Amino acid sequence: MVSSGLDGIVAATTRLSRVDGDRGELVIAGYAIEQLAEYATFEETTWLLWHGDLPSVAQLDTFAAQLAAERDISAATIRLLRDCADRQIEPMDALRIAAGTLSLMSDDAPGIVARLPTIVAGYWRLQRGLEPLAPRPDLRHAANFLYLLDGEPPNPERVKALETYLNTVVDHGLNASTFTARVITSTGDLVSAVVGALGALKGPLHGGAPGPALDMVFEIADASRAEAALRRKLAAGEKLMGFGHRVYKVRDPRADVLARAAQRLFTRAGDMSLYALARAVETQALRLLEEYKPGRKLQTNVEFYTALLLHGLGFDVPLFTPTFAVSRVSGWIAHAFEQRQANRIIRPESEYIGPIDRTWVPAVNRSSGDWLTADSGAR
Amino acid sequence: MVSSGLDGIVAATTRLSRVDGDRGELVIAGYAIEQLAEYATFEETTWLLWHGDLPSVAQLDTFAAQLAAERDISAATIRLLRDCADRQIEPMDALRIAAGTLSLMSDDAPGIVARLPTIVAGYWRLQRGLEPLAPRPDLRHAANFLYLLDGEPPNPERVKALETYLNTVVDHGLNASTFTARVITSTGDLVSAVVGALGALKGPLHGGAPGPALDMVFEIADASRAEAALRRKLAAGEKLMGFGHRVYKVRDPRADVLARAAQRLFTRAGDMSLYALARAVETQALRLLEEYKPGRKLQTNVEFYTALLLHGLGFDVPLFTPTFAVSRVSGWIAHAFEQRQANRIIRPESEYIGPIDRTWVPAVNRSSGDWLTADSGAR
Repeated sequence: MVSSGLDGIVAATTRLSRVDGDRGELVIAGYAIEQLAEYATFEETTWLLWHGDLPSVAQLDTFAAQLAAERDISAATIRLLRDCADRQIEPMDALRIAAGTLSLMSDDAPGIVARLPTIVAGYWRLQRGLEPLAPRPDLRHAANFLYLLDGEPPNPERVKALETYLNTVVDHGLNASTFTARVITSTGDLVSAVVGALGALKGPLHGGAPGPALDMVFEIADASRAEAALRRKLAAGEKLMGFGHRVYKVRDPRADVLARAAQRLFTRAGDMSLYALARAVETQALRLLEEYKPGRKLQTNVEFYTALLLHGLGFDVPLFTPTFAVSRVSGWIAHAFEQRQANRIIRPESEYIGPIDRTWVPAVNRSSGDWLTADSGAR
Repeated sequence: MVSSGLDGIVAATTRLSRVDGDRGELVIAGYAIEQLAEYATFEETTWLLWHGDLPSVAQLDTFAAQLAAERDISAATIRLLRDCADRQIEPMDALRIAAGTLSLMSDDAPGIVARLPTIVAGYWRLQRGLEPLAPRPDLRHAANFLYLLDGEPPNPERVKALETYLNTVVDHGLNASTFTARVITSTGDLVSAVVGALGALKGPLHGGAPGPALDMVFEIADASRAEAALRRKLAAGEKLMGFGHRVYKVRDPRADVLARAAQRLFTRAGDMSLYALARAVETQALRLLEEYKPGRKLQTNVEFYTALLLHGLGFDVPLFTPTFAVSRVSGWIAHAFEQRQANRIIRPESEYIGPIDRTWVPAVNRSSGDWLTADSGAR
């Protein structure tokens, strides 16, 4: 039997996260996502994943100080980001390329987590013709990331909203990027695992979809047009971005957490129009998905409210997936630690279905007519 | 059931290679490794893997010209290699870091295969205080790699020996690096897949072991001392590097192919002493492994003769794994093509074995005594 997506294959035991797709529950190292997202700083969430328990005040202070001290990136990395900006490389490629150079400084876990926001924000600024800012060691992780983007002293509400997001998406079972990190860790080092995971995350099938969900909301623009616009899409066979998930058959619990955070953020900002529009689009979408695809149980996923929340923070679409990576890197590293603890090289089997017993023919004796169809094999 | 190494799980069908560990047979796209290694140029082997059939003369010439035209690397990549050399970064890390920047030029498959030797040889020279050489478009792939290392016009015997090696290790089922390439390809792009695979390959459990096999031969130094030295190692519980394989229970067919190539190379060079010593060590090792570990069927693996052949080519140990990558990249890309043709995101499951229903406690209320053992969780 060939398990090409490894569906249903249990590839690891873990103490990091439990995804219950039937109940719509997500537990992170023992804590319901609703609690962790709400109360924790990102430093506490990262410590929890790496150590199994929440830190004491002293441990938290030490860890936060360690992260704050390791935020600078090397001149070589900054120069490379400039090269990427000159060539208009996409943000996730630039992040992967620059993250690869973290081996030039140190490859310790806190250093990797500390430096990813510096890379992401630095590149975001370079792409807009702005100089990267120096990290501020007096700020905690989430606040520093906001500062690195726009140079403004971050207000507590924006920090809280970002931190809620970072906590919410930090880990989620063996998704493709996390599994990549484990496969590489089974033979390789931490930076390699993170770089590989970044390569997997960038794909539109995995980390790359929050942008289109927001595009759809903007395209609809007015709640009164939602039903007609969505019916048009569904009738044309289009997928509705922000709905449906391979694991969750009920509402993704992260969607609710992020919806509440977005509501709070927009309420404080004093303009609820986009939030109300998104809610209206969601309501119509769920109703129409049930009508057009009865029984498929397509529910709002994490991307829909990720897009709304990050937009509310003033992030533009190209920042969405890199910001996801700024969070998920803590989960990848936690999985790398787990993999190391009870390591066995991850090496599945393949079933050979090609020819056997071919006999070598020198090039001059090969009939070229055989190759008329061969080009379809290479892309 | 938890399959932590995915042993026995068939994760893909493939037309690329068939590894028969019980019979000691390796088939590459229909050809026995003994034939392919002996007769093919590396361009033909790469084309065979990417297209499913050997190229016609015209196709081969076009493909070889395409590879020859894409060997230059960007100034940014060279600058980064200098930064790596300044910081004495290990060759496989430098290769991974530099390969990440291939997205700065183009991410087409021939470009990746064409540029890896330029990176490997350039870094090897920089580490020795020499300037990288410009690729020579008039040379084929293997000959150009030899030229890029030492600047000498490569003689046909050395080219043939290197090409035999490159053909022999180009693909080998779903080993950890190849599987990494497929996992990343299931959501990501080609450069990301290759960079992830390089991260997996560098580990000592996978691509990093030919060096120690040769060290052992040099350490023994004289055939008459082989038995005593090997007995000492085995009695001390040491593993004999270059013997044993997870899949092959009989002799690795690649070992014979490489042994013959090494014999030819050393014969032509006129000094058979190292070859004879290695043969003597091998004979003693196989006899003693059967004595100390009866029934374990530990046989000579590919690494033993890889080390001898590459040493015969004048390569030093730090070049061994990067040279392996120069070959295997064609296999990784072939697997990426296969993965794309019938893609499903590779996303296995995990079994959660941690706590549930924990209740959030603010940091000031956490008793620090609970954390005395927690530090063991982080590394």
